[in-house]
Amino acid sequence: MINLTISTAPALHLSSAGEVRSLCRSGGFTGKTSGSALGFIQANLMIVPREYAYDFLLFCQRNPKPCPLIEILETGNPAPHCAPEADLRTDLPAYRVFRDGKFQEERSDIVDLWQDDFVSFLIGCSYSFEAALLRNGIQLRHIENKHDVAMYRTNRKCVSAGKMKGDMVVSMRPIKSRDVAQVVEICARYPDVHGAPVHIGHPHALGIENLSNPDFGDSIELLDDEVPVFWACGVTPQIVALESSLPFCITHSPGKMFITDLPLK
Amino acid sequence: MINLTISTAPALHLSSAGEVRSLCRSGGFTGKTSGSALGFIQANLMIVPREYAYDFLLFCQRNPKPCPLIEILETGNPAPHCAPEADLRTDLPAYRVFRDGKFQEERSDIVDLWQDDFVSFLIGCSYSFEAALLRNGIQLRHIENKHDVAMYRTNRKCVSAGKMKGDMVVSMRPIKSRDVAQVVEICARYPDVHGAPVHIGHPHALGIENLSNPDFGDSIELLDDEVPVFWACGVTPQIVALESSLPFCITHSPGKMFITDLPLK
Repeated sequence: MINLTISTAPALHLSSAGEVRSLCRSGGFTGKTSGSALGFIQANLMIVPREYAYDFLLFCQRNPKPCPLIEILETGNPAPHCAPEADLRTDLPAYRVFRDGKFQEERSDIVDLWQDDFVSFLIGCSYSFEAALLRNGIQLRHIENKHDVAMYRTNRKCVSAGKMKGDMVVSMRPIKSRDVAQVVEICARYPDVHGAPVHIGHPHALGIENLSNPDFGDSIELLDDEVPVFWACGVTPQIVALESSLPFCITHSPGKMFITDLPLK
Repeated sequence: MINLTISTAPALHLSSAGEVRSLCRSGGFTGKTSGSALGFIQANLMIVPREYAYDFLLFCQRNPKPCPLIEILETGNPAPHCAPEADLRTDLPAYRVFRDGKFQEERSDIVDLWQDDFVSFLIGCSYSFEAALLRNGIQLRHIENKHDVAMYRTNRKCVSAGKMKGDMVVSMRPIKSRDVAQVVEICARYPDVHGAPVHIGHPHALGIENLSNPDFGDSIELLDDEVPVFWACGVTPQIVALESSLPFCITHSPGKMFITDLPLK
């Protein structure tokens, strides 16, 4: 059950990583995690059967901007080192299941789908550096508005690896012109959560026709003194699942991340 | 045939990456590459059959200080993107072959051993940042003396991955006390070639009993105003080959690296 009251409650913005995970586990939170447990590293999830794990790991190594690896779990193990009390099968707000290169369903847990040959990849998320941006006085209107970031599929092809191929997905944040350089400097410190932006200004050059119509997340208005700033995004593996016709994989639902116990340094 | 005259000729210190590789290919150079083609990124080599590639890639991902990945080649392909004219089967000064967890032989090429299921991993080498250190006025006596760095097996266990496990190998350079902090700052800019040191001073704490007796490379005297500075080393996979009883792998010979066309930025 989606509880919109809880999912956008300001209290969550102050929650610890463990509190958000517990709420997910009990079904009390199925919302977006942007602005939740600020200061903790958030992660995208990609689960593939062991048979596809080498190709996907190779894909991540070749595409470190969209797929910076935080942790790869032992085959069959859903308990990550980066949050030892957590269970990846229950502790995200929502999951997406893909079969034969098609999106099949969204779920609030994946306990009954779990198999011993599943390998879980945790991939850094740009929500992680939002705390550092806010700390430095950068305005992030999607957080003020309790919205998700806008995400777009682009025309930029990732480097393929074995069966894995796909276009890069980006997240976009409107940034005031006077702040853009500082935003680059701050984010560049955090390569594990996508680091510096991949594109600043001119959405057309990324193949984005209409900024107000994102493929994932929430639309956000671009004000007169703002530039659209684009970061490589960990939703990219979901495009890989589609384009590579992966027989089976499970991901997080866009915007609904796994929150680790790792602090942003 | 090892030609010591060529291997230590000062001319090589000025050679381009392609020139050093051509000399290797023709058999004209089988020496150590520290100080060769300064300013180009040098790489350690690990070749494993595809069957072991996932475990080894996972090992690298979990141990980025000793095993920073520069490139992983397509299965069966010996021509890297980072040096498109090169052939990994001939263009290193010397190779080591390991079978069933034992060092078997050293060779000057591996053409007749090559198989379609070989996956080649290129791992950054600390020789790469020596140019940046020299440029900043840091004295590196092993280069002045035309010696290799000293390398030691330590008591620091790497994080294991599948079948892959092993102790970390480190390289050591004596650095003047007044320069140690600057050396850390400079090297930290280059995480792809081992980055900042892992240990400064006190060799005993790494399990190194006798600094003058390195496990690989050349011994170097520690002068009164110098501190031993240790970097994680790309010879670590050779310890992994031994400790994990890998059925088969091929590596570079310690100190005799593959030189890429990538400039150190």
